Amino acid sequence: MADSRSQKVAKAALMATADDTEAAFYEAMQHADIDRLMAVWSDDDEIACVHPGGPRLVGSVAIRAAFEAVFANGPVRVSVAHVRRIESTTSAVHHVLEKVQAMGPEGLQTAYVLASNVYLRGAQGWRMVLHHASPGQADDMQEMIESSSVLH
Amino acid sequence: MADSRSQKVAKAALMATADDTEAAFYEAMQHADIDRLMAVWSDDDEIACVHPGGPRLVGSVAIRAAFEAVFANGPVRVSVAHVRRIESTTSAVHHVLEKVQAMGPEGLQTAYVLASNVYLRGAQGWRMVLHHASPGQADDMQEMIESSSVLH
Repeated sequence: MADSRSQKVAKAALMATADDTEAAFYEAMQHADIDRLMAVWSDDDEIACVHPGGPRLVGSVAIRAAFEAVFANGPVRVSVAHVRRIESTTSAVHHVLEKVQAMGPEGLQTAYVLASNVYLRGAQGWRMVLHHASPGQADDMQEMIESSSVLH
Repeated sequence: MADSRSQKVAKAALMATADDTEAAFYEAMQHADIDRLMAVWSDDDEIACVHPGGPRLVGSVAIRAAFEAVFANGPVRVSVAHVRRIESTTSAVHHVLEKVQAMGPEGLQTAYVLASNVYLRGAQGWRMVLHHASPGQADDMQEMIESSSVLH
């Protein structure tokens, strides 16, 4: 069903900045809300998503199917541990460290994920065009790598 | 040593489009040319690079050190097998399938890498701000995933 004009205006207001859009993306994961998650993405045919260790998914149909498979296990306990930004008036590149928790055989397990999130500003506000995620390291490990590089 | 004005103009001319900049990036890898490789990147402090399975490297010092380590083994036999693009007047997001060949104990080995390359347009032309790479699959495997998703 196509959005009504008022729904479109409301959606754009919720995505007035790239940070707003990013917050909506992670909240949708935390609530396993597939419609909210897909609303974050641009309408561009070439939007792309790479989950850790996964293939590249191009287009909303492939991206939706992959997140539906994730959400079949319920909400994702994901939080944003750290964000660095490169922003212009129409584009934003966010380097995000995600902290993901899941119950395993030995209790609550914590994993870190390195995500690159890219947003473009359009008529509908800031929308995601890329989510590329890789297995990461613990928060403090990553900070060590970044600060030690300054000494070389 | 800072670039002279004429060097800056020449460099900008070589990066008149995101495709030019991407070509320069892969040519620099093919020639293990660290200065040419670093010239492709934006001056922004928050430029970032994730090699397959590696940590996130932020800033030119960390990125240069990592590529110098790669180039210590000589030129990289990398070619671009496939590119998809989301482009605006000031930003470009390229989804690239890289084909990398290396000599192993059983002869020439071929690996595929999924790279997301992001470029921003500035006074110096189109410059790279993000290179995020993950282990990929063979060319035809990826195409299957993309086209089959349309059928769902």
